[in-house]
Amino acid sequence: MINIAVLGYGTIGSGVVEVIETNHESINHKIGEPVHVKYVLDKRDLSDTPVASKAVTDYDIILNDDEVSIVVEVLGGVEPAYTFATQALEHGKSVATSNKELVAEKGAELLALAKSKNLNFLFEASVGGGIPIIRPLNQSLTADEINEITGILNGTTNYILTKMADEGTDFDEVLKDAQNKGYAELHPEADVEGYDACRKIAILTSLAFGMQVDYEDVHTEGITKITETDMKYAKALNMSIKLLGTSKKIGDNVYAMVCPMMIGKNHPLIGVNDVFNGIFVNGNVIGDVMFYGAGAGKLPTASAVVADVIDAAKHKERNIMQIWSEKKLHLADIGEFEHKFFVRLPKDSDRSKVKEVFGDVEEVSAEGVTDEFAFVTLKMKEKDYQEKIKAFDSVLGMIRINVK
Amino acid sequence: MINIAVLGYGTIGSGVVEVIETNHESINHKIGEPVHVKYVLDKRDLSDTPVASKAVTDYDIILNDDEVSIVVEVLGGVEPAYTFATQALEHGKSVATSNKELVAEKGAELLALAKSKNLNFLFEASVGGGIPIIRPLNQSLTADEINEITGILNGTTNYILTKMADEGTDFDEVLKDAQNKGYAELHPEADVEGYDACRKIAILTSLAFGMQVDYEDVHTEGITKITETDMKYAKALNMSIKLLGTSKKIGDNVYAMVCPMMIGKNHPLIGVNDVFNGIFVNGNVIGDVMFYGAGAGKLPTASAVVADVIDAAKHKERNIMQIWSEKKLHLADIGEFEHKFFVRLPKDSDRSKVKEVFGDVEEVSAEGVTDEFAFVTLKMKEKDYQEKIKAFDSVLGMIRINVK
Repeated sequence: MINIAVLGYGTIGSGVVEVIETNHESINHKIGEPVHVKYVLDKRDLSDTPVASKAVTDYDIILNDDEVSIVVEVLGGVEPAYTFATQALEHGKSVATSNKELVAEKGAELLALAKSKNLNFLFEASVGGGIPIIRPLNQSLTADEINEITGILNGTTNYILTKMADEGTDFDEVLKDAQNKGYAELHPEADVEGYDACRKIAILTSLAFGMQVDYEDVHTEGITKITETDMKYAKALNMSIKLLGTSKKIGDNVYAMVCPMMIGKNHPLIGVNDVFNGIFVNGNVIGDVMFYGAGAGKLPTASAVVADVIDAAKHKERNIMQIWSEKKLHLADIGEFEHKFFVRLPKDSDRSKVKEVFGDVEEVSAEGVTDEFAFVTLKMKEKDYQEKIKAFDSVLGMIRINVK
Repeated sequence: MINIAVLGYGTIGSGVVEVIETNHESINHKIGEPVHVKYVLDKRDLSDTPVASKAVTDYDIILNDDEVSIVVEVLGGVEPAYTFATQALEHGKSVATSNKELVAEKGAELLALAKSKNLNFLFEASVGGGIPIIRPLNQSLTADEINEITGILNGTTNYILTKMADEGTDFDEVLKDAQNKGYAELHPEADVEGYDACRKIAILTSLAFGMQVDYEDVHTEGITKITETDMKYAKALNMSIKLLGTSKKIGDNVYAMVCPMMIGKNHPLIGVNDVFNGIFVNGNVIGDVMFYGAGAGKLPTASAVVADVIDAAKHKERNIMQIWSEKKLHLADIGEFEHKFFVRLPKDSDRSKVKEVFGDVEEVSAEGVTDEFAFVTLKMKEKDYQEKIKAFDSVLGMIRINVK
C-alpha cells in the first residue's frame, strides 16, 4: 500500500483524488500495489466533501506519519508550499507538485534536497498542464543538446488570441467573454501580462540547460496591446499571433523572453489554438519535436500529478530526476537576440526614410486598414531595431516575428 | 565506463555512433560515467570506415565480453535480430532497438525475458523515429486509461500525400519524385501499402492496452488508390487526406486499422505534413495530447536509440518498461467501427436512391470536377456502409472520415 497526502483540496487537489479513484485499477496495477489517499490537508472545513474522513488541518500529522511516503503539493504560491515541500523531503517523503511558482523559484534547491535524501521531487504538471514535457526533457531527449524551446504555455491568452483572430473582436471584449466563461480570472494580470508563461519558460530553460534561470531575468511582455488591426495584418501575412515563451542557445549565450510573436504556417505551433498549449523543442540531433495538449484544467493537470505519484511510488529510494544546478544561468542580453520585426507607422510616414533606416523591408497591407503604413524588416538584432526605430516619432505597433 | 556494441552499421547504426561522439560530453554527464562503443558488428567489411578498429563479424565475441552491458540492435527484420536480442538478454546485456518488425512480432516475449533477467528491452525508435512516444506512453500517461491512439506513422506516405495536396499531382508522379529524392524506396510497398504503419500501430496498441496485438490482424489499406480528384474533394471539404494508423477502445472492444482517412482542420494531426510524423493520444483523464517530430532519418532515429542507451545505462539491474502480456488481444471486427464515409459515384447515379439508402448525406462538389456525384454519409458502422454501398453498381472511390 502506497499512502499519500494531498495538500490543498482546490480544483487540482480534488482532481487528483478523482483520478486516483476513477482509474484505481490500472494505476494500482502499474505500481504493483494499491495507492491510497490517507490525508487531505486544507485550511477550509472539508466536512461536506467526499474527503471528510481524510481531512486534516495540522501538517505535523502528515509529517509524523511514517506510512505516508508521497506528498502531493497543489496549493500554489511559494509559501507555505516551499516550507511544506522541504519538510516532506526532510521527513523522507517524495513530493509531486503542480506549482509553477514553487518550481521556478525553489526548484534547484528542492531537487538537490530530494537527491541528497534519495527521494524524488517531481513537477510534470507545473508546465503545460497534462502535456508530458518535463519527463520527456528529463528522460527522452537525453541524447540531444537543446538549441531551442518555444512554447504556447498559457491557455487563457491562447484562447483570447484565437478568438480575436477568428472573430475579429478586440482584446477587451474577448477578455470579458473569457472571464464570463471562467477561462480568465477576474484579475487576469498573471495570464495576460505573461507572468504565468514567464515562470514556465524559466522552468523549461533551467531544465534544458542545467542551471537556475531566475524568472525575474526573463524579459516579459503580455498581450494587452494586441489589437484587432494587428490580427488583420497577421492574416494578410498568413501568420498567427501567439504569446510565446522562448529560449534559444546560440553559441554560449542563452536568450529567453516572453512576448506576443507572429509565427508562419510551417511552424509546428501554428495549429495550437483555443485553450490548448504546445511546446516546441529543437535538439541538435533529434531536430524539431512538438508536444501538444491541454495546458490546464482539473483532470488533465491531475493526470500529470498522478503520473508523478506513480513514478515516485515505483522509485522509492531512487532519485530519477536530472537535477539542474543552483548556479545561476546568466541570460544573455536580448538586445543580441535576432528576429524579424513587423512595424506599423502612420500613413503619412516618410517611406524613403523607412528604406534608408531599415534597408529592404516587405510592405504589408491588410484588408480594411487604410490609414497606416506597415512593413516587415529583415532579420535583425533587437538592439538594432530599437535603435533604428527611434528615427520615427510615432509608432503604432510592433510585433516580433519568430523565424525558425 | 559503459561499453556498448552496435549491431549493424547502416544508416541508423552509423547515426548512433555519430550521436554518441557528437554529444559525448552531455551524454556522459547524464549517465555519470563515459559511454564507449566497443564493437560494431556488420557482415560487410568496415575497414574503410571510422569504426574499423571496433569491427567484428562474430557475435560471440560480443556475447562473451562481460564488459559489454548494452547491445544496440539496428539491423532491421526479425532474423537474425530476434536471435541476437534473445542471446544478448540471456548473456546479461540490455537491448535497445529501432526495429519495428522485431518489436511488433516478438516484443512481448523479449520484454518478458528482459524483466525476468532484471534487464531492459527498449525500443523508443521503433515507432515515430525520434518522437518520444514509447516512453511517454510507458511513464507519463500512466494515470490514464487510453481511449484512442491515432498516428501519422510513415513519413514517406505523408510526404507523398502532402505533395499531392499541395501540387495537385497524381500518386504515380509524386512517388517517382519521392524515389528520386531518396524519400521512397525503389520497392515502396512497405510504405505505400501501409505495412510499415501497420507494425507501428500494432506496437502502440499492444503498449496502450497491455496485450499482444498481432499486426496481421490489423486491417490495412495503403494510399495507392488516392487520386488527384480525391485531393480536390478534400480541399472542398476543408480537410486533409492522411494515412492513419488508428486504434480505439469502445467499451470492451479494441478496433485497429490502417487506411487513408480525411481529417478536419480541428484535428491535432492536421498540421503534420511532409516527412514528419505525429501521434495523437486520447486518455480518459488527460484528454487529447499529440506528439510531433521527424518519424525517420539517421540522426533523429539515432537520438531515440541513444536515449534508450542512456536509460539502460542509468538502470542497470532494474527493469523499467511496463511490459505487455504475451496474451493475444483479439481485435474487434472493424465492421462495428464507426466513421463517416466520403463516397464518389458517377454523375448519372440515381440521387434519390442515395437518399433512400444512406438517408441524409452532405453533397460535395469540388472545383474542376464535373462528371461525378460525391457525398459524405452520417457516422455509421463500417459493415452498414459496406452493405448499403452494394446498391450501387459503380463506385469511383471511398475515403473514411475520422470523426473525433
